[in-house]
Amino acid sequence: MSLRIVQFGLGPIGQASARLALDHGHVLVGALDLDPERVGRDLGEVLGRDPLGVPVSDDMAALADWAPDVVLHTTASFLDRIEGQLMACIGVGAHVVSSSEELFWPFDRDPGFSDRIDAAAREAGVVVVGTGVNPGFVMDLFPVVLAGVVARVDRVDVSRSVDAGRRRGPLQKKVGAGLTEAAFREREAAGGFGHIGMVESAKALAVGMGWHDAEVTETFGPHLATADHQTPHATVAAGDVAGIHQTATVVVDGETRATLTLTMAVGAPDEDRVVIAGDPPMTVVVEGGTFGDTATVAAVVNTARRVGESRPGLRTMLEIPAAATGR
Amino acid sequence: MSLRIVQFGLGPIGQASARLALDHGHVLVGALDLDPERVGRDLGEVLGRDPLGVPVSDDMAALADWAPDVVLHTTASFLDRIEGQLMACIGVGAHVVSSSEELFWPFDRDPGFSDRIDAAAREAGVVVVGTGVNPGFVMDLFPVVLAGVVARVDRVDVSRSVDAGRRRGPLQKKVGAGLTEAAFREREAAGGFGHIGMVESAKALAVGMGWHDAEVTETFGPHLATADHQTPHATVAAGDVAGIHQTATVVVDGETRATLTLTMAVGAPDEDRVVIAGDPPMTVVVEGGTFGDTATVAAVVNTARRVGESRPGLRTMLEIPAAATGR
Repeated sequence: MSLRIVQFGLGPIGQASARLALDHGHVLVGALDLDPERVGRDLGEVLGRDPLGVPVSDDMAALADWAPDVVLHTTASFLDRIEGQLMACIGVGAHVVSSSEELFWPFDRDPGFSDRIDAAAREAGVVVVGTGVNPGFVMDLFPVVLAGVVARVDRVDVSRSVDAGRRRGPLQKKVGAGLTEAAFREREAAGGFGHIGMVESAKALAVGMGWHDAEVTETFGPHLATADHQTPHATVAAGDVAGIHQTATVVVDGETRATLTLTMAVGAPDEDRVVIAGDPPMTVVVEGGTFGDTATVAAVVNTARRVGESRPGLRTMLEIPAAATGR
Repeated sequence: MSLRIVQFGLGPIGQASARLALDHGHVLVGALDLDPERVGRDLGEVLGRDPLGVPVSDDMAALADWAPDVVLHTTASFLDRIEGQLMACIGVGAHVVSSSEELFWPFDRDPGFSDRIDAAAREAGVVVVGTGVNPGFVMDLFPVVLAGVVARVDRVDVSRSVDAGRRRGPLQKKVGAGLTEAAFREREAAGGFGHIGMVESAKALAVGMGWHDAEVTETFGPHLATADHQTPHATVAAGDVAGIHQTATVVVDGETRATLTLTMAVGAPDEDRVVIAGDPPMTVVVEGGTFGDTATVAAVVNTARRVGESRPGLRTMLEIPAAATGR
């Protein structure tokens, strides 16, 4: 199935997503970006591919001419930055698949936003959905799918551990690798840190498990190195910061029912793990982890094929069919 | 969410499913079974629970009075035995969740059956779906969900290994544990063997991966013991049959794109494993395996909550939302 696709946002994730859409046989009919270095250039050239005859525009009014089936939306993490963008896509009758972390589960963070987007999407008969690997897969959709074959779920513990030393330089910087603990805490206080979407994952997990009125709490802190590490991008001394350690806890009726633990640090093992205590118990390990950069882009492009077989509205990955069957 | 449930079929899976429905807070409003030892008795008593004030009936006409939201259907594996039963449920406007292995993916085996059930279900605004652990999860839904975060899938290899020595006596007998190879081959020739649903899983996996026009081939044979084994139910000498070894292979354009391998044998390890070659590659292990008996019943009862948020028609687990969100 070949779709008419518009790429909205041409940062690293957006460019990778547009390239993958081409590789999957879709047709790129337009692209939106605000960077003056990209606007007006041919999209194919921006992507490092053959020319596509499609210029990059900074004007959302172009959406109407492009008439996309699906917009791949990769501009910003936060709801307050994207409402107008989503409304413009909905307004031309296009489905939207977004990598915005907050859009993965926006209902608690901003009910007003959620109601407005949901109403507009239903009215237009289109689907708006946020996806990715985290949030969007490892800590939410994945354990919910596993729980589908569990008769009684007592508790769910999900951990994702990423060796930041084997990832891009910006990620190592983002997790504070090489900082002293004091410098880390200073930057933390300034709000410069933290993986976005843990709370969103926890809320989605709770609803997926049928735990309504769940309370979610978060912790955040440095993961300290126990040995020296040297990467092409960072020098980490034992006792200094290797990366971040972040948790979300789901409490229902005073009882801890789920924990989500994210470690992104130089020298950490690459592994995702879901442990469901219950009947039957399940322990599921993604050996070597789910490689985040590629997996997020894959989630966005793969979901585009499936939204047409979903119910219109503001949806979540818990509601999108696992595959498009064409039926 | 409490549903009005009818249990259709009170064999071991049906009874377990009815008990779990009660444990999940649903209301059992009726039950159908043909066994004269059960008909007319109180359902609660048949289940080994407190009386429910609901008699077991052998007359499908009772469905209209019971007015169930969902029928849990656990009568038979084969399509030619269940069409009338499904139509009776559809006729009273009830969703149907079935453990019938062939119903998990009936489209290729019997297109006429599939068209008739699909048309009737759409007309009545209800969902009919087959589920379970295998088929229904390990070899089909599970790898398809994992592939949702893979940009390029080159090949998928799924294996499920079950230690029959740790399972019920009937299962050990079913897989031929303790037979000589000659006796196994004799019983195989008489058609008495084989796990049902491998082809169904393979076809669903292929469509889930977007591989249309896939060819599926099957193999079946004994898994021979390399050492002596003694269980409470079977004595297996080295060189004799420990169980079954069954495969399905998916070939697309002359190339093998997926293999499914099932080993159910005394002394085999308990493990499910999905290996996706591609970008990013994924290796996912269910440590200790997915415990079949409980998981199948869980799949049936858990799916009941989700069918109301699906599109009407004859559906597959690839299309049923991972969770009911109430939205």
